[in-house]
Amino acid sequence: MEIKEELKKYQEIINNELEKQIQVSSNMEKILYESMNYSLLAGGKRIRPILVLATYQLFKKDYKICIPYAIALEMIHNFILIHDDLPGIDNDDFRHGKLTNHKKYNEATAILAGDALFNKGYNIISEDLKNTSDQKEISKKLKIFNEFTIAVGKMIDGEYIDTEFEGKKITNQELKYIHSHKTGELLKLPVRMGAILGDATEKELEAVTKYAENIGLAFQIKDDILSEEGDEKVLGKPVGNDKKMEKCTYVSQYGLQGAKEELEKVTKEAIKCLSIFKEKSEFLKELAIYISERNK
Amino acid sequence: MEIKEELKKYQEIINNELEKQIQVSSNMEKILYESMNYSLLAGGKRIRPILVLATYQLFKKDYKICIPYAIALEMIHNFILIHDDLPGIDNDDFRHGKLTNHKKYNEATAILAGDALFNKGYNIISEDLKNTSDQKEISKKLKIFNEFTIAVGKMIDGEYIDTEFEGKKITNQELKYIHSHKTGELLKLPVRMGAILGDATEKELEAVTKYAENIGLAFQIKDDILSEEGDEKVLGKPVGNDKKMEKCTYVSQYGLQGAKEELEKVTKEAIKCLSIFKEKSEFLKELAIYISERNK
Repeated sequence: MEIKEELKKYQEIINNELEKQIQVSSNMEKILYESMNYSLLAGGKRIRPILVLATYQLFKKDYKICIPYAIALEMIHNFILIHDDLPGIDNDDFRHGKLTNHKKYNEATAILAGDALFNKGYNIISEDLKNTSDQKEISKKLKIFNEFTIAVGKMIDGEYIDTEFEGKKITNQELKYIHSHKTGELLKLPVRMGAILGDATEKELEAVTKYAENIGLAFQIKDDILSEEGDEKVLGKPVGNDKKMEKCTYVSQYGLQGAKEELEKVTKEAIKCLSIFKEKSEFLKELAIYISERNK
Repeated sequence: MEIKEELKKYQEIINNELEKQIQVSSNMEKILYESMNYSLLAGGKRIRPILVLATYQLFKKDYKICIPYAIALEMIHNFILIHDDLPGIDNDDFRHGKLTNHKKYNEATAILAGDALFNKGYNIISEDLKNTSDQKEISKKLKIFNEFTIAVGKMIDGEYIDTEFEGKKITNQELKYIHSHKTGELLKLPVRMGAILGDATEKELEAVTKYAENIGLAFQIKDDILSEEGDEKVLGKPVGNDKKMEKCTYVSQYGLQGAKEELEKVTKEAIKCLSIFKEKSEFLKELAIYISERNK
């Protein structure tokens, strides 16, 4: 099966689940819920929830147990995108080719829609935990919930540092610190969640974690490259903004060619980490290549 | 013991716990953590965490089990205050007599400090859950965690509606809906958490819930009265802003005298709800009176 077809299949599963989540409870907060759905269903790639399901399927077939955690993660990913776009932070007008939340609605709604999606993510986890009776399962899920909050905390740190260091000269080590926090944590989390839910051994958990660290790097390097030389129409957002805002990126740090070489290196490394899973890891390997070759 | 002394005793317990929580992990995010502590330790009244401990003590003495939940709630209360003060929402310059977070730092830092405090609250809950081995205790705590996320969701709804309905004519019923969400939910939650952790019976849980609903109303009515006729120096924030921004408040709705009568009524009702606990509920009764008589 082609990677794009398989991605689409996974995306449909995730989108169906996401569409069910935000149900307005009263007419008074209707617009808030509309705005949450506006951003949540704006057509993201769903890489993070897909990673939960696909990693779980290295170990077991029926991914149902993963759904709440996959969905919660996608919500929290969307919350930070809404806040990141705000006038007080990146001041972006477009995302996924559509107006950003505060441009479509207003700033107050966007701040609170982000907050509400953030909370909804944890609400979904709490519902699932409350409805789990098996003790072994609860203990796995509590481990995941704890890792979830730690990863989200680091991601927020990364957001902050990225904003504060705009236009400042930084070292390669600092650049890596920023990206491992801002992007890396929320890509490592889904594979760890999938593996823990799938009863991975310590060695297997370590292997998928290293895979995720590498695709996290690949993801960020590719993002930086696309921000420099991507197609605005395909990307759905303006190109060259990073340069204009003097953001520290892999391209500003290593040059365009250097960034491309780094991308190839980490993608190969990611694939190597999966060797212990043999043919079962075909999709995740293809996904690493897809991340490095995508045009949006 | 005087209510003020007893409050101070509880406040010290809470403040000691809060001071331990936000520890900077790296030099790069130092200012973010400073700004979180700035708001968290700005001298709030700690009513919500105190309610957890005091309600628990209707049933049992050693409140240690309550601490993570009390602290998490205070963090989430502070997160919403930071976001509420932002230029995109209320655009306030002062809180507790000090500059608001975005005025002291900047807007990006304030948005992310709010997000980080929000997440830290759930992180503390996840740590406590992970470290609980007793099954009966886990099941109580999971019930609480779920109620927590539901209450916070409703509180965010209330924030949104309060913002959106500024300057619009609303009915008394709509005013009650706003306040029960914006203020009421996070006052009902702590007494329910304390009672559930203390193994309250259904009847007892119902009694403290009704108590909290009434002090929630009292809290909001008193806030509205202070916003109209309080002392700016004591309050630490300007008076008359609600009127200027055409906010719908109990005072705009019932008039100053009407609001004061309503305040007396709900305070009496709150005290009545505690009658089943006899002398054990002395502090919570005094607290209801304190809320209705406070000058800040």
